[in-house]
Amino acid sequence: MARVVVDVMLKPEILDPQGQAVANALPRLGVDGVSSVRIGKRIEIEFEGSADLDRAQEIADKLLANPVIEDFTLRVEEEPALATADASAAEGGEQ
Amino acid sequence: MARVVVDVMLKPEILDPQGQAVANALPRLGVDGVSSVRIGKRIEIEFEGSADLDRAQEIADKLLANPVIEDFTLRVEEEPALATADASAAEGGEQ
Repeated sequence: MARVVVDVMLKPEILDPQGQAVANALPRLGVDGVSSVRIGKRIEIEFEGSADLDRAQEIADKLLANPVIEDFTLRVEEEPALATADASAAEGGEQ
Repeated sequence: MARVVVDVMLKPEILDPQGQAVANALPRLGVDGVSSVRIGKRIEIEFEGSADLDRAQEIADKLLANPVIEDFTLRVEEEPALATADASAAEGGEQ
């Protein structure tokens, strides 16, 4: 199995109220030095055979991104991005 | 400015109805060969100075991920991931 990751973000000129809400909450947590926060979608498409970027592009065009307000990028991801090894290396909570 | 990207995904054992809805729609679009689709969040945190992974971890722990049902990973991203060059290289719509 192979995985294609589609990252969908609002176009830079589009206001991101969710991201701004997070950015505005940071000072109350005592976190500074952050100039902006933008929130988008990460979609993991698992293919039965080899990763098919053309097909992933088709899926993103038709179902995952609104071309009027969003940009997206595609990449093949070999190792499982959130395998337990990765998750425990950078994961919060369990530490 | 430097950017840390936080990818938040539902834990593998948690049902992902959004992802399943996309996966179920694929045959109607004539797309096959996809075994699963999972949808999560991609958060881009821009730091004024250098990228601060500890601070990004703190933000993710407190605001971005629910440790009961979600895993997250952090990484520093040098070049702007969705710079126009990237977007037009892999973007749908404008081609």
